[in-house]
Amino acid sequence: MYGCDTHTLRNKETVEEILVKAAKESRAKIVDVFFHQFKPYGVSGVVIIEESHFTIHTWPEHNFAAVDLFFCSKDVDVERAIEVLIEGFGVKNVSVVEVKRGVLPKSFPLREKEVLEAGVST
Amino acid sequence: MYGCDTHTLRNKETVEEILVKAAKESRAKIVDVFFHQFKPYGVSGVVIIEESHFTIHTWPEHNFAAVDLFFCSKDVDVERAIEVLIEGFGVKNVSVVEVKRGVLPKSFPLREKEVLEAGVST
Repeated sequence: MYGCDTHTLRNKETVEEILVKAAKESRAKIVDVFFHQFKPYGVSGVVIIEESHFTIHTWPEHNFAAVDLFFCSKDVDVERAIEVLIEGFGVKNVSVVEVKRGVLPKSFPLREKEVLEAGVST
Repeated sequence: MYGCDTHTLRNKETVEEILVKAAKESRAKIVDVFFHQFKPYGVSGVVIIEESHFTIHTWPEHNFAAVDLFFCSKDVDVERAIEVLIEGFGVKNVSVVEVKRGVLPKSFPLREKEVLEAGVST
């Protein structure tokens, strides 16, 4: 996200509020939230959701932030999350790249009992 | 990472230990570590590093885990991190995709004073 508002990117509370709002409005189910303030500025944060995670790293001096919206369910409304981010950070220009993850072959997953009883492979 | 050991993927402590080891051995500077155990199984975790983050999500029933190694410094030895992960999870097959992030134009970043004094853009 380019051309973001410097003041917003600098503030841990604001960055957290916007990313949490993006998660909520996309209907992701929030599990936990962790944010870290860097000195003299810059914020890193993660919202762990049942469907995987949202993360953000901000570079206020570049008016730039990088966000990952990682999810494994079609119920997550990623378009809405992006809207919230654009509005929240005053984004002037955004580049969105979709990366497909873990394209599994048509396989037969292990049953619950098998997973719970699995020992260490040797 | 495909064909991982089910038992290892299931165990929050083991997953955390391996991802933290990967971060340390890649010379990333660890800021904070958060892991979450899902029921009946599956682990999500994040290692926040000064250089950004490492995350993992495991699907023991598919012998699969998805890892992000997100870093903004050439000092992070990502090859070593991958080696640690492959060894730790007993990975049989791995797909590595490099995604360039935030390719900024040759710009003049704001000075520290400008960042610290920036108000909210209107």
